[in-house]
Amino acid sequence: MTPERYQRLRSVLDRRQPDLTVVTDNVHKGRNLSAIVRTADAAGVAEMHAVIGDQDYRAFRGTAMGSHSWVKVHRHPDIATVITDLQAQGFQVLAAHTDDQAVDYREPDYTRPTAVLLGAEKRGVSELACSLADAHITIAMQGMVQSYNVSVAGGIILSEAQYQRQRAGFYDRPRLAPEVYQRTLFEWAHP
Amino acid sequence: MTPERYQRLRSVLDRRQPDLTVVTDNVHKGRNLSAIVRTADAAGVAEMHAVIGDQDYRAFRGTAMGSHSWVKVHRHPDIATVITDLQAQGFQVLAAHTDDQAVDYREPDYTRPTAVLLGAEKRGVSELACSLADAHITIAMQGMVQSYNVSVAGGIILSEAQYQRQRAGFYDRPRLAPEVYQRTLFEWAHP
Ligand SMILES: C[S@@+](CC[C@H](N)C(=O)[O-])C[C@H]1O[C@@H](n2cnc3c(N)ncnc32)[C@H](O)[C@@H]1O
Ligand SMILES: C[S@@+](CC[C@H](N)C(=O)[O-])C[C@H]1O[C@@H](n2cnc3c(N)ncnc32)[C@H](O)[C@@H]1O
Repeated sequence: MTPERYQRLRSVLDRRQPDLTVVTDNVHKGRNLSAIVRTADAAGVAEMHAVIGDQDYRAFRGTAMGSHSWVKVHRHPDIATVITDLQAQGFQVLAAHTDDQAVDYREPDYTRPTAVLLGAEKRGVSELACSLADAHITIAMQGMVQSYNVSVAGGIILSEAQYQRQRAGFYDRPRLAPEVYQRTLFEWAHP
Repeated sequence: MTPERYQRLRSVLDRRQPDLTVVTDNVHKGRNLSAIVRTADAAGVAEMHAVIGDQDYRAFRGTAMGSHSWVKVHRHPDIATVITDLQAQGFQVLAAHTDDQAVDYREPDYTRPTAVLLGAEKRGVSELACSLADAHITIAMQGMVQSYNVSVAGGIILSEAQYQRQRAGFYDRPRLAPEVYQRTLFEWAHP
């Protein structure tokens, strides 16, 4: 490992956001999940949560982005536990889901501990997950098509979260707990 | 065609933006191009421009989104002509390309006639296209990965264009030339 590489790892860890995460509710296509992980990395997300079947998970791990990821993707058997666990840790869970109660995705305060919940390609966010979420957020669409590709929707929402956090100086000083920082640095430096 | 359907077509045409477009410089994966078309539709883009090889174009047309699209995708043999033609029509061409001269993607005035230029998955925007563009724009990334998936990058940039145009009231009154409006309505109503 060159000194430059080591500095790069540190500079990325300096910007990791322990209180920003993404939850995927049965997003099953490996390439969509990979694009979401890549986008989450760009926003400084350190850990994600995915409810996904065995076969789909294997396919995801097989994609180039899945096989070596800078974002830890935790698998969970059911969505309700993920949501209530995050809420118990103080996260607001924002379901990306267009319905009557949805607010514009720019409205929430993303400097609060926040989990962005994304739904399946066909079915969307499940009814159970929608009912447990703290709010529903929607991206206005001006055209004929009724929804974005899930990774595009995730990118648009995370870019707003990142923007708010940039303005609040959240990328200007380390925010990971020291022991998490050191452990991750060790893992990244010794793959 | 039900009256509701007819009204829906009209309401989308009422929001089409003749002075907002997307140019793809050798984006060759059909699913990426499809996701870009879907995202362009959501921002009210009526016509797009793609430089793409024969085989890749056939693959794109074969995808579900490509086969029936609400956005006209024009094919071009070379990128230079597309860019200079758009500039001759008064468009600013913004190359999504991260380099020293790039400005934050939120800086440009997207209420001006604007073409967003997106690059190939591996190679990015070509040197020729970069040199012809009016400006380079970049989306800040806080993680290890150096670039977004091209359709995610397109979604983030177009969501900013859409936001600026929403605030300026660009979706509140019809903006297509009357003859284009009528012709498109006829085509959509009689597929
Ligand atoms: C292809 S969409 C699912 C569409 C599904 N038919 C529905 O009605 O929910 C996949 C996921 O992307 C996200 N998404 C797509 N478009 C969105 C929008 N305009 N606003 C908010 N989230 C969106 C949501 O999380 C959604 O569950
Ligand atoms: C996968 S990227 C290409 C990466 C390529 N290696 C390069 O260096 O340009 C595909 C396209 O997405 C767009 N893109 C991806 N990330 C971007 C970013 N952070 N800022 C601006 N455009 C981006 C650009 O148009 C780029 O050409």
